[in-house]
Amino acid sequence: MSGTASNPPLPLARSSVQAAHQVIAPLIHRTPIFTSSSLSAALPNGNTLYFKAENLQKGGAFKFRGASYSLSCLTAEELARGNHAGALALAARERGVKCYVVMPDNSAAPKIAAVRAYGAEITFCAPSAPARAAALAAVQARTGATFVPPYDAANTILGQGTALLELLGQAPEPLAAVVAPVGGGGLLAGTALAAEGTGVRVFGAEPRGADDCARGLADGRRVEDVQADTIADGLRTPVGALNFPVIREKVERVIVVSDEEIVQAMRLMWERLKLVVEPSGAAAFAAVRTPAFQALDIKGPVGVIISGGNIDLSKPLPWCG
Amino acid sequence: MSGTASNPPLPLARSSVQAAHQVIAPLIHRTPIFTSSSLSAALPNGNTLYFKAENLQKGGAFKFRGASYSLSCLTAEELARGNHAGALALAARERGVKCYVVMPDNSAAPKIAAVRAYGAEITFCAPSAPARAAALAAVQARTGATFVPPYDAANTILGQGTALLELLGQAPEPLAAVVAPVGGGGLLAGTALAAEGTGVRVFGAEPRGADDCARGLADGRRVEDVQADTIADGLRTPVGALNFPVIREKVERVIVVSDEEIVQAMRLMWERLKLVVEPSGAAAFAAVRTPAFQALDIKGPVGVIISGGNIDLSKPLPWCG
Repeated sequence: MSGTASNPPLPLARSSVQAAHQVIAPLIHRTPIFTSSSLSAALPNGNTLYFKAENLQKGGAFKFRGASYSLSCLTAEELARGNHAGALALAARERGVKCYVVMPDNSAAPKIAAVRAYGAEITFCAPSAPARAAALAAVQARTGATFVPPYDAANTILGQGTALLELLGQAPEPLAAVVAPVGGGGLLAGTALAAEGTGVRVFGAEPRGADDCARGLADGRRVEDVQADTIADGLRTPVGALNFPVIREKVERVIVVSDEEIVQAMRLMWERLKLVVEPSGAAAFAAVRTPAFQALDIKGPVGVIISGGNIDLSKPLPWCG
Repeated sequence: MSGTASNPPLPLARSSVQAAHQVIAPLIHRTPIFTSSSLSAALPNGNTLYFKAENLQKGGAFKFRGASYSLSCLTAEELARGNHAGALALAARERGVKCYVVMPDNSAAPKIAAVRAYGAEITFCAPSAPARAAALAAVQARTGATFVPPYDAANTILGQGTALLELLGQAPEPLAAVVAPVGGGGLLAGTALAAEGTGVRVFGAEPRGADDCARGLADGRRVEDVQADTIADGLRTPVGALNFPVIREKVERVIVVSDEEIVQAMRLMWERLKLVVEPSGAAAFAAVRTPAFQALDIKGPVGVIISGGNIDLSKPLPWCG
């Protein structure tokens, strides 16, 4: 009685990202872009940076894009049975659809509070992939709900790619490159698809404590067993099976950054951009600031995707801890 | 050899704010506006709020507007002699003009660092009005620089009023009211001028620990002696002699808010808007949330001016302290 949401034909292409954007544009925020002359001036190559502020997206992160598009692609029959997925809670509420969410029991308190506030029914599980799969199967058996994968699904990739489509239209000049963080890989894969044929070079940013994507690219095959240890809680997920080959084919390089580099970048963004950015959301800027990226000697403007701003503000700021 | 910048004819009018905007529009950021359905839903009257994010203005505050316009109004002769004022440092650098700044020696470290980074020469003084006046006179005598008053000057008022002009053009529906914080009063007076003839009701927001403007309005004459004690460091200044009568004539009411109300509003703005807002910048939203404002029973959309986002992020967040 349960299944997964219908998917577009493969291989995915830029035109599919554009089609996704047409569908979700009325549902999402067209988030603003930001520049900072002082942040640019501090870079050896002085690249003008165009920050795409997905921390200002509905729900506080880019994930609303993929969730909105996934939900839009459910059939009427699937909708009648409801749906399921973390970032879907808000999109589901706006569509008046019942949403069931399986979350690890060590999830950040504000994320739990947000999902609850959006009216979703939460089932907690132990923070491991097998426990999550078991809880998911139990919920599906009980409710008949349709499973909408959080990151490793074609419609999710297409939705996430719309952030770069917007950025390309908002920046007043052509970009030489774009950097997006990589956890599960939906945002990076979607970004790479959206950049196809534009001449924009695409880079990923991954924390050292969860660098399975970078290691997988070096080894030529996806690393599936990851013991994540990084402050960037949004990037602890291993890169997905569908996302990895897209990234391998279309992303020039994944830059690995330390937690210290992430925290420094995050602080600079709070101070100069006046934006509340979560550690994961600072990873791309951290990557731009590394000697490794600067050694590429990209002289033109660089797009930087700020993935989200969901951080527990009741805790000390990471640079104060 | 020294003087003050040339001023427009009085009484000031909305058309002068519009003229000021024409002059400074190429120099300033047209800061974005923000809404939040959850923040609106939490209000008894459910007003849609349009936040004008002047924390994203150059220099991190609305003051860049007045500084830019004041600088634009200096004569060539005055420019040759240089100029003087805190928020002018950045505007002066962009125009290639030497800037001297007198600052209290207890100023926040990041504000000092910013002025220094913008290339201004700083003279420190004790944190009192007489000490500031003496230091100012000494710098003027030494340099022949022109004094550009920080808040109590016609061109400053006109520049600050441009924030509301933009907001009125950006909001997708007419506003019923607008709330701006009041310290020296330049922003509130300018906002009131910009609202003239539009039907938008204008309110001020003032911290209880520096409520000289509200007390002055109640007494019918300006309170000049103020012992400010509030977390909102940008609003400790007593309301200026030029600003006060404009406010008395054109502002419907100044709502007084406690530091606790300011901190609560500030935290909500960080969490929901994902914006770094300083305490002064949260005062207007704090005022909207008071029973006093809600009792006015304004049903329509309300503009809320976020004045700035310059906060020392090396210190604990005020709600954690």
